[in-house]
Amino acid sequence: MSIDYLALANAGVETLHPYQPGKPVEELERELGISHSVKLASNENPLGLSPKAKTAIERALPELARYPDANGFALKTALANKLGVDTQQLILGNGSNELIDLVFHTFVGAKQQVVFSQYTFIVYAMATQAHGAQAVVVPAKDLGHDLDAMAAAITEQTKLVCITNPNNPTGTFLSKAALAAFLAKVPEHVLVILDEAYTEYVTEEERHPSIDWLAQYPNLIVSRTFSKAYGLAGLRVGYMVAHPELIGVLNRVREPFNCNSLALAAAEAALGDEAYLSEAVALNSREMARYEAFFDSQNLRYVPSRGNFITLDLQRDAMPVYEALLREGVIVRPIAGYGLPHCLRISIGLEHENQRCIEALTKVLA
Amino acid sequence: MSIDYLALANAGVETLHPYQPGKPVEELERELGISHSVKLASNENPLGLSPKAKTAIERALPELARYPDANGFALKTALANKLGVDTQQLILGNGSNELIDLVFHTFVGAKQQVVFSQYTFIVYAMATQAHGAQAVVVPAKDLGHDLDAMAAAITEQTKLVCITNPNNPTGTFLSKAALAAFLAKVPEHVLVILDEAYTEYVTEEERHPSIDWLAQYPNLIVSRTFSKAYGLAGLRVGYMVAHPELIGVLNRVREPFNCNSLALAAAEAALGDEAYLSEAVALNSREMARYEAFFDSQNLRYVPSRGNFITLDLQRDAMPVYEALLREGVIVRPIAGYGLPHCLRISIGLEHENQRCIEALTKVLA
Repeated sequence: MSIDYLALANAGVETLHPYQPGKPVEELERELGISHSVKLASNENPLGLSPKAKTAIERALPELARYPDANGFALKTALANKLGVDTQQLILGNGSNELIDLVFHTFVGAKQQVVFSQYTFIVYAMATQAHGAQAVVVPAKDLGHDLDAMAAAITEQTKLVCITNPNNPTGTFLSKAALAAFLAKVPEHVLVILDEAYTEYVTEEERHPSIDWLAQYPNLIVSRTFSKAYGLAGLRVGYMVAHPELIGVLNRVREPFNCNSLALAAAEAALGDEAYLSEAVALNSREMARYEAFFDSQNLRYVPSRGNFITLDLQRDAMPVYEALLREGVIVRPIAGYGLPHCLRISIGLEHENQRCIEALTKVLA
Repeated sequence: MSIDYLALANAGVETLHPYQPGKPVEELERELGISHSVKLASNENPLGLSPKAKTAIERALPELARYPDANGFALKTALANKLGVDTQQLILGNGSNELIDLVFHTFVGAKQQVVFSQYTFIVYAMATQAHGAQAVVVPAKDLGHDLDAMAAAITEQTKLVCITNPNNPTGTFLSKAALAAFLAKVPEHVLVILDEAYTEYVTEEERHPSIDWLAQYPNLIVSRTFSKAYGLAGLRVGYMVAHPELIGVLNRVREPFNCNSLALAAAEAALGDEAYLSEAVALNSREMARYEAFFDSQNLRYVPSRGNFITLDLQRDAMPVYEALLREGVIVRPIAGYGLPHCLRISIGLEHENQRCIEALTKVLA
């Protein structure tokens, strides 16, 4: 007996393809027969784990056979204090990816419309597809969000709009004025996810006051992560902030033990490790300038970025360059899957990693 | 402006209530003003973390700012070797809870029927509800699954049948002959989740050969966890084994980084720590006998259990006893939420914890 499993699956699954993550370094090195490679492919924090987070993990180990606190009391309290919100406005997830999916599971039904920009975090397109909903993909403006066109794309059938700021994979940034004007135009029945995975890398003056906006816009959901500036990608922890009633509805659908105990402990500690965060942001800013100076000196095109990565536009098929860099032991990210086959996304690493990337690029492009 | 979020939510969410996990010990102690309490409420492994898992976690810490291996290569390889299956037959999850939800996300649509037993893991009822599907709840037989009635409940609209063996929260157990006869009756279009969260506690002679059955039944999905006998509840890791094409369809919908790096490393190590597993199983068996002897001596009714817990039937409202035990510093699990208001579920702890529970029960019931 043999089964056509796709025929049994829900609408949308048949044409869905799994996310293609960057390969683990060990796997790539094995394939290429290289070693000591430099990975600048997944927008990770090159500093490694924060010392305070490490201590918190070690302290939590004796209780690891116990289930996690299903309500994440300590981490939510720390976040609420830091953000000036109530704990009831917070929901914790197994990475913000899980929370994005949770918003879809809870609110997005078949045939409803989800509006997002042409080049943005691919999970929005995948979740839309998996739920049998209709993706309304708004063409990009200068590789970023075209907010006017996105507002115009909203209809009675729209359930959700997704905005990533700074944007991944391009690093483009929407000003607070532009975002505020957009939010004012979104009808109340349309939820807005404002994905701020990279917001810690934005200067305080430029950063949009999304938490303040929550009081005014009960349809706004702010999404953040500990995977980037807080250096906890491997542990999986993200959070959303929104109206307490909206969070209450999400909690009905959330898996109770979705956040592991070490993630809860480490995130709480990382939140209090301001020295680590400052160092991460300063390093990123300094090393971003290094890439910009190099690209400028070589007349290479790039997208000015507010994230922890920079997107190089080679104006030709980027795959041969990607592969030549691999042979030099430098792993960057091709983003043809995002519709940008001429571009490579380079995560900002440590100084010596970036130097090596720049040397490899110089050699490969010569 | 105020929004009726439930009206915006998908069918099923409005009448869904969040899972009620056992309260964390610290929270209960704070509420009751007690300390040094004993928690026998969540079917956790009282031995704590396996030493090999602890070492694996410590080794993995330096890479924690990196994303996990999205394919879980090392853990899947270890599992494949142990189970005698292909890695393509395996999918890893953030606890088996996430994988159960994933089966629903992938295969269960609105108005389809899901068949499960009256007293079983509550996640099945919740997931059915969250997907707007129809729960076909088959009355229990001797507090366990009535397989004949479950087979008879299958219709053209049935998409999924869920069986937990040993069953939670009652500990009842279906023989391999009974299960095999049931599987032979299930039509090909109906998927079967066989949830074996507690299977390591069953003796090898009694344990059903579910992995062998996969070749015969491509609609069978075996679900297991590292949260019980392997002692990793806090880290969240479970897995499913099924036909490789079925796993491929689930992988389309799975979040890529659903398993955290420490869970992957710790589970692989725990799988190889046979001394720990043997000790956990032997302790459970020895201490289960202690409870049975006590209940027998007191003429207390209980359900003979193959899990790491035992369900006491007080034949009257169990809440006053639960609360009196709490005041003695002994935390067990009321299971009125499962439809068993006369029962308390007691997880098997360490010898001194069980002694304390038995003393507290003796005092409270006197």
